[in-house]
Amino acid sequence: MGSSITKQIGQRKREERENLVSQMEAQLGVLEDHPDDLVYTHTSPEDIVANLKDRKEGWIAERVMIAFIRSACSAHRKTNCLTEILFCEALEQARSLDKEYAATGIAEGVFWGLPSSFKDTYNIVGVDTSLGCSPHCFKPTEDPKDEGGLVRLFRQGGGIAFCKTNVPQTLLAFECRNPIFGPSTNPYSPARTCGGSSGGEAALIALNGSPFGWGSDIGGSLRIPASYSGVCGLKPVKGRWPTKGGRSGVPGFEGIKGMVGPMARNVDDLIFGTRNMIKLALTTSFMGEQLLPLPWQDVELPKKLRIGYYTNDNCIKASPACVRAVEESVAAFRRAGHEVVKFEPPDVSEALKIFAGLTSADGYQTLLSNIGKDPMEPSMRLVTLGSKLPRWLNRLARWAFDNLLKDYMFASVFATSRPKSVQEYWQFTHRRDVYADAFRKAAWEEEQFDMLLCPVQAVPAVEHGKTNFLSPMSIATILYNIVDSTVGVIPVTRVDRERDATPVNYLDDTKGSWFLENKVYSGGPDRAAYDAEKMHGLPVGVQIVGPAWREEKVLGMMKVLESLVGYKT
Amino acid sequence: MGSSITKQIGQRKREERENLVSQMEAQLGVLEDHPDDLVYTHTSPEDIVANLKDRKEGWIAERVMIAFIRSACSAHRKTNCLTEILFCEALEQARSLDKEYAATGIAEGVFWGLPSSFKDTYNIVGVDTSLGCSPHCFKPTEDPKDEGGLVRLFRQGGGIAFCKTNVPQTLLAFECRNPIFGPSTNPYSPARTCGGSSGGEAALIALNGSPFGWGSDIGGSLRIPASYSGVCGLKPVKGRWPTKGGRSGVPGFEGIKGMVGPMARNVDDLIFGTRNMIKLALTTSFMGEQLLPLPWQDVELPKKLRIGYYTNDNCIKASPACVRAVEESVAAFRRAGHEVVKFEPPDVSEALKIFAGLTSADGYQTLLSNIGKDPMEPSMRLVTLGSKLPRWLNRLARWAFDNLLKDYMFASVFATSRPKSVQEYWQFTHRRDVYADAFRKAAWEEEQFDMLLCPVQAVPAVEHGKTNFLSPMSIATILYNIVDSTVGVIPVTRVDRERDATPVNYLDDTKGSWFLENKVYSGGPDRAAYDAEKMHGLPVGVQIVGPAWREEKVLGMMKVLESLVGYKT
Repeated sequence: MGSSITKQIGQRKREERENLVSQMEAQLGVLEDHPDDLVYTHTSPEDIVANLKDRKEGWIAERVMIAFIRSACSAHRKTNCLTEILFCEALEQARSLDKEYAATGIAEGVFWGLPSSFKDTYNIVGVDTSLGCSPHCFKPTEDPKDEGGLVRLFRQGGGIAFCKTNVPQTLLAFECRNPIFGPSTNPYSPARTCGGSSGGEAALIALNGSPFGWGSDIGGSLRIPASYSGVCGLKPVKGRWPTKGGRSGVPGFEGIKGMVGPMARNVDDLIFGTRNMIKLALTTSFMGEQLLPLPWQDVELPKKLRIGYYTNDNCIKASPACVRAVEESVAAFRRAGHEVVKFEPPDVSEALKIFAGLTSADGYQTLLSNIGKDPMEPSMRLVTLGSKLPRWLNRLARWAFDNLLKDYMFASVFATSRPKSVQEYWQFTHRRDVYADAFRKAAWEEEQFDMLLCPVQAVPAVEHGKTNFLSPMSIATILYNIVDSTVGVIPVTRVDRERDATPVNYLDDTKGSWFLENKVYSGGPDRAAYDAEKMHGLPVGVQIVGPAWREEKVLGMMKVLESLVGYKT
Repeated sequence: MGSSITKQIGQRKREERENLVSQMEAQLGVLEDHPDDLVYTHTSPEDIVANLKDRKEGWIAERVMIAFIRSACSAHRKTNCLTEILFCEALEQARSLDKEYAATGIAEGVFWGLPSSFKDTYNIVGVDTSLGCSPHCFKPTEDPKDEGGLVRLFRQGGGIAFCKTNVPQTLLAFECRNPIFGPSTNPYSPARTCGGSSGGEAALIALNGSPFGWGSDIGGSLRIPASYSGVCGLKPVKGRWPTKGGRSGVPGFEGIKGMVGPMARNVDDLIFGTRNMIKLALTTSFMGEQLLPLPWQDVELPKKLRIGYYTNDNCIKASPACVRAVEESVAAFRRAGHEVVKFEPPDVSEALKIFAGLTSADGYQTLLSNIGKDPMEPSMRLVTLGSKLPRWLNRLARWAFDNLLKDYMFASVFATSRPKSVQEYWQFTHRRDVYADAFRKAAWEEEQFDMLLCPVQAVPAVEHGKTNFLSPMSIATILYNIVDSTVGVIPVTRVDRERDATPVNYLDDTKGSWFLENKVYSGGPDRAAYDAEKMHGLPVGVQIVGPAWREEKVLGMMKVLESLVGYKT
């Protein structure tokens, strides 16, 4: 029954989407027939706005929008990255901007005439914010005041929101699939996921289907897809721009700090978006949301950065490709005269226990209330399993991991994933504070690092379905939601089938989870999540981490690394 | 049994304290015999530091410290305001500063040689942080790194912490009494409380026993005692200085935003303390605590402030004295050319329900674990009652308030005070965000107020024991922990037995709680909490409220009002 309702609603949503896409393709033609589109889609957002305002020949808002619509359609055909289609409205807006500019000579706003895409968690008037859940379908946002804060700012700056992008069911996965819109695929390999939860956004941007876009991150949701799909992203710390005006999987949950942020093809585009959003945010009211009175400030970086790095968090051993991404960045920084030293982060498995302990505290009842009678995606099963078992079975499972499999780490994480009393919940928030303080003290006070450099995840983009038992792999990004840090991700290299092959006995010296590392490395190319041969050519990113509210500095350091590694899309 | 342990520990603590106080009195004599002390105790903290550094005649750190020790002893004899006594150590430190200055000519630090007092929630090396609970007694802080963040900053600025001040058992009351140190009394009337939880601090400062001091506030704990005892206080919003290094009644609870802040005799002294603490905080590491990179910035206030005010929050009708305090401030602002308009805050009883709903979510188990076998103070009984009743009895009580007493407001607040599941708890944090956003939108965005002006509480300082059934009266301050605002309190007038008498039929038009308002106004002078005759001469403060992280502006506006009303201690 439930599943038939889901099918019905999903089918209607997909038909609507298909109609809007194919209607545009019929009207405008397709990208392959318009090679001139590349002139527009390969121009930076900053230059697009400048060209439009300068009335550079061939540059009108309508032309730019058409190019990006065709490019977005093409990206969507390739990766199934879009959810809500606003092409008609966007084209209309572009034309009316052109008309106004022609009539008045006025083109105001830092984003004037620029298209942008938003992860399907941001509200946009006229369309749903469904999180891939049927109960939220066909309930479009009505009041412009309920639009996402960044959507409103973007519009206020003269920009045009032209589509929304796909997410995993309820957002709690790093595979981008749900029963309404289906799976989005990796721009580099249809057999693989583009990551999640901001996966559709990453795929779209990687394929030049949007000048830049906007995701969100409560455990790596912006950073993992950026790394999987080879784009850049920034997870700021809450305070500098609005987060409201979207659907959260768990309203009222503040145990883990989530945030919304930009995704783009390079760091300059992130800077352009971030700088202007911060400027706009300070002059705008946001339905009561408190923003820091902290204007964007250009920073001068220390000539010699002090950088801490690690390649192994001792939870799940990072793959050769992801280790190499960090090590090549380390070498590049050193060659440029920066000081890079190894850093041993405080027990990272504790951060994973805290994350599991906090998010599972209501037995995932709030989260699962989103899906109604929809079938649960397999990628959510392990996450929610511990909290669904009766206490005795949870304990038995822990015992088995502990004693039979000798996987103490996995056992102790699994054991924290269960419904809790409020008193226990507060004990976990206290544990979080203790851990985060110790981490920040070690990195920023004792070591006085300007930044930390580390893998985004143990592996590059995995095949569809491979995350089902690997959700704890997101600990590499979760860590910085627990520590509440400003984090950027940039791609630095690509998997090389030879250099990045898994050495024999790679796990011999590991301190990580036996269960998880076996899923990643064992069972041959068909079963192992990591395989350099099959992954050859996939992008690999790194995380660049700074303290809270240092968006300017983190972006600046990302730019330094970007210029040193010379990664090409 | 339990009670005998409490008595034993309490007696030992009080004996220790008495020994340290009387030892000092024996060694230094008492205030009455040293009228010259007033020269020092009536000098502002800023001038004390300046005089010391300038080597003004008669000004050495030891002499200043002696004056404040004698004054603090006198205040303590009058109000029982002190808990932990650090006079010997402080005197020693003052002497060694003098010696060093004489030898080197170096006297560095913005607080050089200045004594200050701290509420007994801040850790100080060598002494307890007991919260008036026997299980926390005789467990002194050992590591200097565990000291309160503001204590560490104050020391770093050259200041000397010389005593700690009394609090209510577990902090959850606005009467300042506990089974270890007994009750602190109001500096203006021994029959009355000095307020809580920063009550001892307010009493000490009101009696010039400390140049300024440091309290904390998670529901009015700094603002209520400031108003009750006639001093000034500032409750900042978290971010500009450290909060760690103290004992919280409920570790890990983040549903309500608490904060630490200064208390002083006037606004200039608050500004001096705040400005310098912010400056010091930005150059210091705090064991991993995240501080905003937001330096102190002198602000220029708009020539014509736009002020919203209200005298009635429709929960508990404010007394004539407290209404007059606001109205006289309104008149003074208007006379000075500012724009003052009435403001109707969004349903304030909702804020009280949220507060009760969140704090009671674990059935007060965490809070009550502090008191071990100590007898519970009567002032905590009503607060914790709802959560202790079985669900059916809680519902019956609600029914009775609703139907028999027709007190819908009290009934609905009472009903929210009960143990909850984590899912319900998150629903309450979501309700808090919805309420706070609506409030901030109304005040700061729609009305564009520079500040709000309102009573600190419905009444001036009540008699000991009168808060037992009146804990919900703190809604007037709780409101701004829910809304997360920067709030200052300054005294503006004193109760006048004639002008502030309760008019006949004062409650006729009320929309507040019948039960609570009857406790405040009915039953004649022996039973009513408010009685202008008996309260004649008590100080009455007002709240000055601004958005988050606007400490500079709120202090500036407090100074404007202070200069307009000309209140004299």
